[in-house]
Amino acid sequence: MARERNKGPGTLAIFAGGGRIPLQVANAADSFGRTLFILGMDEVTDPSLKKWPYASLKWGEVGRLLKLLKSNSCTEIVLIGNVQRPHIKDLKFDFGAFAKIPRILSALVGGDGDVLNAVVKSFEELGVKVIGAHEVAPELCLTEKALGKNKPDRQARKDIEKGLNVARTIGGLDVGQSVIVESGRIVAVEAAEGTDEMIARSATLRLGKNHGRSGVLVKVPKPGQDLRVDMPTIGVATIEGLANAGFAGVAVERGHTLVAEKDALRAAADKAGLFVTTLPPAD
Amino acid sequence: MARERNKGPGTLAIFAGGGRIPLQVANAADSFGRTLFILGMDEVTDPSLKKWPYASLKWGEVGRLLKLLKSNSCTEIVLIGNVQRPHIKDLKFDFGAFAKIPRILSALVGGDGDVLNAVVKSFEELGVKVIGAHEVAPELCLTEKALGKNKPDRQARKDIEKGLNVARTIGGLDVGQSVIVESGRIVAVEAAEGTDEMIARSATLRLGKNHGRSGVLVKVPKPGQDLRVDMPTIGVATIEGLANAGFAGVAVERGHTLVAEKDALRAAADKAGLFVTTLPPAD
Repeated sequence: MARERNKGPGTLAIFAGGGRIPLQVANAADSFGRTLFILGMDEVTDPSLKKWPYASLKWGEVGRLLKLLKSNSCTEIVLIGNVQRPHIKDLKFDFGAFAKIPRILSALVGGDGDVLNAVVKSFEELGVKVIGAHEVAPELCLTEKALGKNKPDRQARKDIEKGLNVARTIGGLDVGQSVIVESGRIVAVEAAEGTDEMIARSATLRLGKNHGRSGVLVKVPKPGQDLRVDMPTIGVATIEGLANAGFAGVAVERGHTLVAEKDALRAAADKAGLFVTTLPPAD
Repeated sequence: MARERNKGPGTLAIFAGGGRIPLQVANAADSFGRTLFILGMDEVTDPSLKKWPYASLKWGEVGRLLKLLKSNSCTEIVLIGNVQRPHIKDLKFDFGAFAKIPRILSALVGGDGDVLNAVVKSFEELGVKVIGAHEVAPELCLTEKALGKNKPDRQARKDIEKGLNVARTIGGLDVGQSVIVESGRIVAVEAAEGTDEMIARSATLRLGKNHGRSGVLVKVPKPGQDLRVDMPTIGVATIEGLANAGFAGVAVERGHTLVAEKDALRAAADKAGLFVTTLPPAD
């Protein structure tokens, strides 16, 4: 699954949410000669990203964001990393936001997919193209059939199949990307809480029928999801969470999953005795 | 929706899980002249139920359960109240269980619906008919169009519609009965954790867009679910949980929902400013 690396002209903006992936994306783009401009949020974004030209944004600073993109000659933007949707009372709109308020408000009344679509549209109206992290850093895409030495056993393979069916169904309703299945039983379904939190809360729900590790995480794109802005992501924290909760492994879609640190993830999975396996994409 | 009260012959066994409903069911059956035999579990079952002939069971005591039903001339059994599926290491099967082990094990590898179906089949092979709590205590069924004085506003009605669609879809996959929707966004989906726990964990996920109460719980039967053994239930605890988390109300299926203490639930909803509304059943 060879992908062409995007080396497009002009400055590449990276809107960097939480987690380890944004730094990896910036490093990759930098090493291939892109000029970068980072937009971060205090207490969310990895401070290592401040080695590039950097601006700190608050929720609601829509006008400032658009001005910064213009004044830094940004032609493209990558949106990457975890962002929790804000509580409405934490939103303080700046003056420039007012022109966008109708769209912002209508997006906020809707699922996460609706919000992301509205964000993409707003950037593109400004002439800033939204591109996927995997387009500037294809090496972060999980294209291997598996990572590490462990393999799902028969029950885990059945659980993966069941989880895939449930995950794609709930994804089609814009609910979430992840489910946990153990011995044929749906243990947890991700909605607004995010994958790490879903794994943590599932620890006490695991029944442990195999007297060892049991239960799998299945995380796949929502059908029709815009992979530029919401590609499923797993990382070392995912593996550690699954390991702590007693689960057996994780299954994701081949070519449609971002991994921040592939070697570290493989090592963590091998050390904990977990499998990391990939499934063919839906289409 | 008039229902005929079951006054069947012989002793009525009640397998009483946790919560307030089992006592209400027993009281109703008793007041209509049924002879009762209660099967409870320590630290789960309301001790008030010990005023009737009572036996305490442990997980895995299948042989003892069947013997008790026979020696007490039970012709019917009601399974009612919350039961958490046990961790496999807490299961100690008694001698009488061995004949049933193949079915028990095959049920344990499966969803909660599969388990309940296997349990029903085991009782009926023994000549003990499984009946619904609503058949011995029809007054516990919520047949009103609403309880209390509060009504869903326009956004809440839209959230109910969306929640109903998601709940019936996930119910069809034997995932769970409940979802929470706020301003068009799926906040949480219930799987193995149970409704109260899902409500509690959703408190921090609520975005509070209306600067007041927002977000609804929708709880409906899984399509094709055996209503004798898994009728959706709400109670005062549900209302209190929703109130503490800031949600606006709850929607359930008319005629397909059990309420332990209707008056107390109505009072709790009115006090907290929550609505309790019912929807026409799917079929």
